[in-house]
Amino acid sequence: MTHLKRLFDINPFKLTTHSLHKEDIRLQESLTSIGNGYMGLRGNFEEGFSGDNHKGTYLAGVWYPDKTRVGWWKNGYPDYFGKVINAIDFIAVDIYVNTHKIDLNTIAPTDFYQELDMQHGILSRHFTVTLENCTIKCSFKRLLSLTIKELALVNVSVEMIEGSGEITLVSKLDNHVHNEDSNYDDMFWEHRQSGENFVTAKTISNPFGIDEFCVTTFMQNDLSQPNLPTKKEFKEFEASEIITTTLQTSDVISLDKKVIVVTSRDISENNQLDHAKNLLNQVNENTVEELISQHKNAWLKRWEVADVVITGDDEAQQGIRFNLFQLFSTYYGEDERLNIGPKGFTGEKYGGATYWDTEAYAVPLYLSLAEPNVTKNLLKYRHNQLPQAQHNARQQGLQGALYPMVTFTGVECHNEWEITFEEIHRNGAIAYAIYNYTNYTGDTSYLKHEGLEVLSEISRFWADRVHFSKRHDAYMIHGVTGPNEYENNINNNWYTNYIARWVLSYTLENYQLYKNDTTISLSEEEMAHWQDIIDKMYLPKDEELGIFVQHDTFLDKDLMPVTNLDKKDVPLNQNWSWDKILRSCFIKQADVLQGIYFFNDQFTIEEKRKNFEFYEPMTVHESSLSPCIHSILAAELGMEEKAVEMYQRTARLDLDNYNNDTDDGLHITSMTGSWLTIVQGFAQMKVFNESLSFAPFLPTKWDSYAFHINYRGRLLYISVSDNINIDLLNGEPLDVTIYGNTHTLTDSLTVKLMTKGVK
Amino acid sequence: MTHLKRLFDINPFKLTTHSLHKEDIRLQESLTSIGNGYMGLRGNFEEGFSGDNHKGTYLAGVWYPDKTRVGWWKNGYPDYFGKVINAIDFIAVDIYVNTHKIDLNTIAPTDFYQELDMQHGILSRHFTVTLENCTIKCSFKRLLSLTIKELALVNVSVEMIEGSGEITLVSKLDNHVHNEDSNYDDMFWEHRQSGENFVTAKTISNPFGIDEFCVTTFMQNDLSQPNLPTKKEFKEFEASEIITTTLQTSDVISLDKKVIVVTSRDISENNQLDHAKNLLNQVNENTVEELISQHKNAWLKRWEVADVVITGDDEAQQGIRFNLFQLFSTYYGEDERLNIGPKGFTGEKYGGATYWDTEAYAVPLYLSLAEPNVTKNLLKYRHNQLPQAQHNARQQGLQGALYPMVTFTGVECHNEWEITFEEIHRNGAIAYAIYNYTNYTGDTSYLKHEGLEVLSEISRFWADRVHFSKRHDAYMIHGVTGPNEYENNINNNWYTNYIARWVLSYTLENYQLYKNDTTISLSEEEMAHWQDIIDKMYLPKDEELGIFVQHDTFLDKDLMPVTNLDKKDVPLNQNWSWDKILRSCFIKQADVLQGIYFFNDQFTIEEKRKNFEFYEPMTVHESSLSPCIHSILAAELGMEEKAVEMYQRTARLDLDNYNNDTDDGLHITSMTGSWLTIVQGFAQMKVFNESLSFAPFLPTKWDSYAFHINYRGRLLYISVSDNINIDLLNGEPLDVTIYGNTHTLTDSLTVKLMTKGVK
Repeated sequence: MTHLKRLFDINPFKLTTHSLHKEDIRLQESLTSIGNGYMGLRGNFEEGFSGDNHKGTYLAGVWYPDKTRVGWWKNGYPDYFGKVINAIDFIAVDIYVNTHKIDLNTIAPTDFYQELDMQHGILSRHFTVTLENCTIKCSFKRLLSLTIKELALVNVSVEMIEGSGEITLVSKLDNHVHNEDSNYDDMFWEHRQSGENFVTAKTISNPFGIDEFCVTTFMQNDLSQPNLPTKKEFKEFEASEIITTTLQTSDVISLDKKVIVVTSRDISENNQLDHAKNLLNQVNENTVEELISQHKNAWLKRWEVADVVITGDDEAQQGIRFNLFQLFSTYYGEDERLNIGPKGFTGEKYGGATYWDTEAYAVPLYLSLAEPNVTKNLLKYRHNQLPQAQHNARQQGLQGALYPMVTFTGVECHNEWEITFEEIHRNGAIAYAIYNYTNYTGDTSYLKHEGLEVLSEISRFWADRVHFSKRHDAYMIHGVTGPNEYENNINNNWYTNYIARWVLSYTLENYQLYKNDTTISLSEEEMAHWQDIIDKMYLPKDEELGIFVQHDTFLDKDLMPVTNLDKKDVPLNQNWSWDKILRSCFIKQADVLQGIYFFNDQFTIEEKRKNFEFYEPMTVHESSLSPCIHSILAAELGMEEKAVEMYQRTARLDLDNYNNDTDDGLHITSMTGSWLTIVQGFAQMKVFNESLSFAPFLPTKWDSYAFHINYRGRLLYISVSDNINIDLLNGEPLDVTIYGNTHTLTDSLTVKLMTKGVK
Repeated sequence: MTHLKRLFDINPFKLTTHSLHKEDIRLQESLTSIGNGYMGLRGNFEEGFSGDNHKGTYLAGVWYPDKTRVGWWKNGYPDYFGKVINAIDFIAVDIYVNTHKIDLNTIAPTDFYQELDMQHGILSRHFTVTLENCTIKCSFKRLLSLTIKELALVNVSVEMIEGSGEITLVSKLDNHVHNEDSNYDDMFWEHRQSGENFVTAKTISNPFGIDEFCVTTFMQNDLSQPNLPTKKEFKEFEASEIITTTLQTSDVISLDKKVIVVTSRDISENNQLDHAKNLLNQVNENTVEELISQHKNAWLKRWEVADVVITGDDEAQQGIRFNLFQLFSTYYGEDERLNIGPKGFTGEKYGGATYWDTEAYAVPLYLSLAEPNVTKNLLKYRHNQLPQAQHNARQQGLQGALYPMVTFTGVECHNEWEITFEEIHRNGAIAYAIYNYTNYTGDTSYLKHEGLEVLSEISRFWADRVHFSKRHDAYMIHGVTGPNEYENNINNNWYTNYIARWVLSYTLENYQLYKNDTTISLSEEEMAHWQDIIDKMYLPKDEELGIFVQHDTFLDKDLMPVTNLDKKDVPLNQNWSWDKILRSCFIKQADVLQGIYFFNDQFTIEEKRKNFEFYEPMTVHESSLSPCIHSILAAELGMEEKAVEMYQRTARLDLDNYNNDTDDGLHITSMTGSWLTIVQGFAQMKVFNESLSFAPFLPTKWDSYAFHINYRGRLLYISVSDNINIDLLNGEPLDVTIYGNTHTLTDSLTVKLMTKGVK
């Protein structure tokens, strides 16, 4: 892993650095992103940067359907590729010394410091530069308020350390922004209106019947010297306020910029300006210090339940906090119209807002850390989009419902056919989340109603998508891409076949239980057909090796471990042709093992071990979703070294730039991985069969770890050191199984740690 | 085949119709295309047409590299998609009655007639319309000269049948043309210069280092009333000459438009205008009648050798002549820098100029109908592009040479990965053509030198592209698309594996024969490795069914014959999602059978029969390259009905619009199919093992058929009716085998027809 790159110091609750990484500005920007669920920003510099960088502001739910452009049209392609779009730059404050613009690309700072305070959700920075016979120190602080979602606060201050000169600050709202991934460098915004301190712009029209989005941004610039005269200018797409003053040695000028961002998702275009002004008036009822304090408290409150405390390993500690910070900056369950995009507010890559990542990786975390309603909202999001999922199936000429790989509205909006057409296992994950919610919470209300509607349509899809092979007297699923996206158009992907069979079975079972509650109705004939598929589903297995076979011809490959690879070839997706990747045995992410993770109670420990030992050595983990699953299984199998290595990789994926692609943005949907690893891996929390169980181990290097979980109306605090302590902080007593022994937890219980694994 | 559409009457040497097919103008335009190898035109109307249509003028070797646009970038993609570009419209002559423009989209003609005279290469048309109290007859004739390749002749005449009115003719050169397949409706031309009667334009620049092409078009308009005053106008991209006159009943005005088209492929930009004027001066030394007569004679001369005469079936007769006419309009071997594009000069679809079609389907025809040098030029074209083929292999991270699927320069320029990355069997066809040329002509000069250079590099590619499967103790080729493009990313396509093995074997064999002649040198180690691959190549076979298996899991599909398909679903590529097509058993074109066709002498008749009977019923023949191979094999197997059905389909593919896509242009590279079917199918001409043999059958409906072939310095005339007559028109005596009996042909020989097949 020669390419690993760590820009920030190890620090349990902060990212800090004294270095300006000019050649890695994009990476630095990604890592210092902040967000509040409503909007978010990459860590761009307020004063601008003329070198290679990636300006990025993103507003939740604001997107553009960009016409599908492919080399060769195939029937079934979606009409458009839905893109998260880059929105107005509202943090900009240019700084001039006399007429010389401060730009760290051309002026080397004598000191530089940047800090992301994850505990309080504040990004700050300062540096000192000498130019025009002046030495000045510029300091910046910014936050996106957790308490008033439309509010951004930016503080810029300039101190004359030595010399004297004219300092000019230009505080701007600038809507001249392009997406890096547009088809033809086209602009997704059209000008509506601008005026003193505000800009209104709207997304350009589209031929697909998708709503346009209007956004108004309004700013107020408060100066430390309130009587300084300022000049306000505006033009198309832009408004600015210009402050000029002369500073002598030790003089300081400080600017508090308050920005209100209103979108047509909440407020119609005509009311946006008034709404923004009113909101700002309310904001002004508090001092800036009060606003900051409210924001900090809101973050502290989130950490109260969510924090995972690790002692003895600050790298590990920083990793999981960074992940939770960025995850909550993206989504905290407040707006049921939203979901969790793969890059959150930190980049444009991939497009779309919703992936199967939500159901497969995020739901378990939100089940434990948030009220059940947050997860239920995520499930309702899919139920609301059932008609669109039916549309997606029709596009392929199939019955039932096919949930999209990538979407904003429920309609598939990804235009790579191996994904859109083939990666249909996602449809199983949507069903799995219904099981997961019901099983974890014990609440059957969703399953009985919306759940069975979704499940029966997904089942119909599978029943139409399989075919019967006379030669094998078995149902097969040809032409899929499994979770391992380094193979396409394969036949009988074990994972896909397994989850498809499971969906049919789970649907039938729950239909029998709740047929008097549900509006759906299944005919005897249909149920018999589904049962036949369940009975005769082909699941490739190699008896000799004792493994489930990833797909029909996987074992014919030239099989070799990742350790045989030349280091310079890794990551493969950046160094090998796609042809070579497809034909190789190397696996991008858990595939068979993903199934074993999901349906963990259905396999013997021997099956788990044999499959893990066969597949993991061929896995390159070039999907951010890969290491956590492997860590969880390694922990279960007592393979401490592998479990810890994989924890490190999932927890510090972005911080150490494992896949050499964090410059594009953070891997938001995989940010749950480190939490899953600790809770489901190291602590071995399981909730199968109405029973809550743990079987913790403690990594050799760590002194302890501790976390909270919500479970069926209780709040539990679990800490693992020499002993395992479980405190019931809230709720009725319950049985908890530890290392196979069941205890009744009324207040607190302690069990001695049984270290597993071989060091 | 409910969609079959026949716009033109049955007529042995002409296409004629009295109908204007307004709703099928694109189809009518495609079918009335003309060309002279240097340039070509769709059958657009000189006076314009305001309804849906597709204006198209194409100049051989003039193209544009349009930036690759894909949904998701994969390493190895070519940088650009090479596009045949639509060039200046030089046939335009607008006609006005008073100020009313003649437009058959808005004015219904009282008569209409269109005729493509294939014997003489002339397209003509006339119609009568009444407007502005005038009834006028407009007549048109045009040709692209076979004797002066830069010359187009257009005659437009207008006769006042009844009434009187002012007639205006506007003869134009109009470079405002767009490609229908550009990424973003961008214009591929930039204006250079225009003036009285000329326009010069250049292709826009590109970032790929590909030459820009400059084109100058110069026109001269000669009137039947030479003293009529005319007005000349020009502006950017356009020049026009305007003639106005008043016609009384029975008056006629006639315009001869001569156009010279010069490109920078031959003449540099600065010299183009002078060159065009000089050429026109030479042209003017002949009368228009003389020019037409020279052109007609040139076509007649081509037909002397090439014509296949069928008696008793005018549909069949018209079909093959249409194919030969269009094929020769595209390519007659005069310019070794050119090759045979899939749409010739009749459309823009597919892009690129050179496909494996040339080697697989065109070479056999040119071997028989042209001097050996024409074929040798086609082979040299590939040898010249060996460095580019090496580049293509490197793009995939592979050794040796990978000839492109689609190209202008030798560099792959197609951007669909299933084609670019996977359809590598084409590399075998390039090698096969070397064998074919050598075997047919007996001339080893190419094989010994250029041939072995090409073969060894193709062999190196295959040796690197296979992998060894330990489980099977065999070499395999994973991740390919076979000739059947309705499946992608399959493993062990029998055809690909077979031809790859054959290339290695043919290379080793000829290296042993000619190692003292060639510059290449193979190490013992490399040869041993190739031999190991030859010995252990995996060739999927099903012993029970007695067939070669198309690829590893083909037999697991839901197998059913095409007759099970609902008629409304055909053609599948227009009615089914790509997902459904890929998973179905339906075969686009000969795949296993393509191998049996190429290596016909290596299989028993029983193997041929079993494979044909297994695969043909699942074949939808939605590639234009499919029916001929099936017809040839059906003929060999004595299946007359299938052979004739497939002949009809190949010969009349475009005339009857079998695949419902001829509106996009003609299927030029498959135009050899009807000739192959008659010569290699019905007459069963074979040239294996240094022996020329025939085993003709005569379709029940036909009275006779007859054709010429060149073979090893002889010209033979073969006619099949009740007897088989073979005349040696030229060259030394030779042995000819007919129905297994060998005869020495000195002058002429006759054998009684033995009708094969069951009616």
